[in-house]
Amino acid sequence: MKLCLDAREAARSISVTSTEIKNNVLLRIAELLNKERNAIKSANDQDLQQARESGLDRVLVERLIFSDEKIDGRIRSLKKIAELPDPIGQYDEFITRPNGLKVGRMRIPLGVILMIYEARPHVTVNAAGFCIKSGNAVILKGGSEVLETNKILGDIIRNALEEYQLPANTVQVISSSDRTLVQDLLKQDDYIDLVIPRGGEGLIRYVNENSRIPVIKHFKGVCHCYVEASADTKSALDIVMDSKMLMPEVCNALETLLIERDAAQSFLPALKDEAERVHLKLRACPESRKIIDAEEATEEDWRTEYLDTVLSVKIVKDIDDAINHIEKYGSHHTDTIVTRNISSAEKFVQSVDSSVVLVNASTMFNDGEELGLGAEIGISTEKLHARGPMGLKELTSYKFVIYGQGHCKKTK
Amino acid sequence: MKLCLDAREAARSISVTSTEIKNNVLLRIAELLNKERNAIKSANDQDLQQARESGLDRVLVERLIFSDEKIDGRIRSLKKIAELPDPIGQYDEFITRPNGLKVGRMRIPLGVILMIYEARPHVTVNAAGFCIKSGNAVILKGGSEVLETNKILGDIIRNALEEYQLPANTVQVISSSDRTLVQDLLKQDDYIDLVIPRGGEGLIRYVNENSRIPVIKHFKGVCHCYVEASADTKSALDIVMDSKMLMPEVCNALETLLIERDAAQSFLPALKDEAERVHLKLRACPESRKIIDAEEATEEDWRTEYLDTVLSVKIVKDIDDAINHIEKYGSHHTDTIVTRNISSAEKFVQSVDSSVVLVNASTMFNDGEELGLGAEIGISTEKLHARGPMGLKELTSYKFVIYGQGHCKKTK
Repeated sequence: MKLCLDAREAARSISVTSTEIKNNVLLRIAELLNKERNAIKSANDQDLQQARESGLDRVLVERLIFSDEKIDGRIRSLKKIAELPDPIGQYDEFITRPNGLKVGRMRIPLGVILMIYEARPHVTVNAAGFCIKSGNAVILKGGSEVLETNKILGDIIRNALEEYQLPANTVQVISSSDRTLVQDLLKQDDYIDLVIPRGGEGLIRYVNENSRIPVIKHFKGVCHCYVEASADTKSALDIVMDSKMLMPEVCNALETLLIERDAAQSFLPALKDEAERVHLKLRACPESRKIIDAEEATEEDWRTEYLDTVLSVKIVKDIDDAINHIEKYGSHHTDTIVTRNISSAEKFVQSVDSSVVLVNASTMFNDGEELGLGAEIGISTEKLHARGPMGLKELTSYKFVIYGQGHCKKTK
Repeated sequence: MKLCLDAREAARSISVTSTEIKNNVLLRIAELLNKERNAIKSANDQDLQQARESGLDRVLVERLIFSDEKIDGRIRSLKKIAELPDPIGQYDEFITRPNGLKVGRMRIPLGVILMIYEARPHVTVNAAGFCIKSGNAVILKGGSEVLETNKILGDIIRNALEEYQLPANTVQVISSSDRTLVQDLLKQDDYIDLVIPRGGEGLIRYVNENSRIPVIKHFKGVCHCYVEASADTKSALDIVMDSKMLMPEVCNALETLLIERDAAQSFLPALKDEAERVHLKLRACPESRKIIDAEEATEEDWRTEYLDTVLSVKIVKDIDDAINHIEKYGSHHTDTIVTRNISSAEKFVQSVDSSVVLVNASTMFNDGEELGLGAEIGISTEKLHARGPMGLKELTSYKFVIYGQGHCKKTK
């Protein structure tokens, strides 16, 4: 596929481009977004009109809007990515071996990244910014409902690249809605190094099942909070409500509360009061329902990512019971324990096999910026390569670089 | 598949086993190898007899031999793995954020690893040792020509695990030669986290094309040495001969020599003399053949991994020409430059996209032990996860571990 060959060729150039020029390109894109905001909004209006005419649900149409506020958010984000340290060319370690060989692992770009995502124009700008800064070429396939918006954003990005004598094909925005094109792209493992799908579970499963290229992803976030009897009730309640209610629609929002049996009598009524106050629905296990009034949770509830103001609640015998529940029903995304017991904290950290495990903190802290990555392009629950929130470094690989002074093994 | 469920269950136990117990198991396997060496050799004899009877080529039969010397090698290797630092539970970094959150990336095992390899019994012991030490469960599928040898080695390993109350299924040796079993295993992406194929290019391509699980691999090593005109002739010749002749059969052995035009007149006759002395065959480009007598290299030669005492030789215009040749014909494995020019060294390091790039050193130094990994289980030319030689740490993943003191995002 020509588009892949073009990406591969562009990848060679951007991989050796200086930090300064990459930053200049990012800042230039930010400038152009500001300068061209009327054209962007008018392209976005076309998409919105088309979406409304095709009878798209009003809530979904609202997601497509690329307003002044969203444009300003992208401008800020690009400036921020420009300020982040460039991982490329940095050494993870650099040692001198006993024989005098100098051995380092140097960070290099992955090469060509394919992003497949739903109709969210801000991802187009964000992914382009991340990939340029990390020295990768990227192919962007966004939802076809925002074709016109993505097209003008792509033009702006490509113009900025060309102004700095970089190949426009560093960023290719696919403006076809042909689904066979995606199928073909997912087979190009000779040309594409990584696929990052972002969107609903259906989209991610489709990409995963049809790709011959490594995919970094998370399907869903069924996140847990385990409240131990030793926990401070007020602190536990704060963490539960922050994890659940701050942004119920995000993947690291809390979905299931596990309470140690000895804490249930005191904790559940307090939870119930707070839930009523903020209109949070509870679905509880039979034992919990003897203490508080709540809808009964079914087996299905324990596996459900509500992404809504609903919380499933279960009483567990002890920490082992909690860990086993998380292993059985969880999604290896984000899980937290509230405890005052140091050995429980250690056991939870050791045994819960999730990409982010917290002690006495809200699941909302699973966020690239909060964890010191500067920003994030996605969250992975994979074991290979990157895990948890992914920043610039997670879009890189490394090579061993070895400096000798005529070293031969035979005569070392 | 029951075998995968068993592996997954064993993986949970071995993942939280202490370093001390894991080391004890390794040392116990070493003891048992010594104690049971007669039984091992007699099982191996059965395999050898079967192989001879089935008319297997004599050279191939020799590869199957698991002699006292090889058993001793494995005993030493297990002791060495026991001495290496345990990556599990170590933190790559541990920072305190401005809000007081403590954030670390803790090394964890990958989970279940599937090794598919040819009829080399030493891999059975080595892979088991590596996986146990790194807290992983492993399914070992070796070549069917050494079924009996692998079976007894598997029994020894499993006995040692059980002596320390660890699940025997931490290491499962497949003693079936049923190829559909391998096909089925390669589809178990819900249970197996990583496949490492080791063997010829055919085996590796088969695994890669049939797997739904991430595969870490290198297909082949078409390794280059670029000799610049600035190089010291003696040093360049030493590096070329060491890279080519020390172990011509290994993947990081040199296959193609690229010489800068200005160095050809002085370097090629010296190379020719040395090649004759050590019975190295040269296949050269037309321009080289005006200087020395050699067989003509075809287009195919530039892509060939000889694994033999043959070297292809090509004159290039300059370093850019050399880098382009390596990009076009190379396999991203191991490439070295011989130069006295610091800017050429930097350019080569930046631009050659191989897993190991050397300056003034033999390609033989692409070796886990030489590069400070302690030992290696394989070499990867992948961009995702691990690249270059893979040691214990490369068989691990990480999780983010976050310690708060009641941290909520809303009120941070």
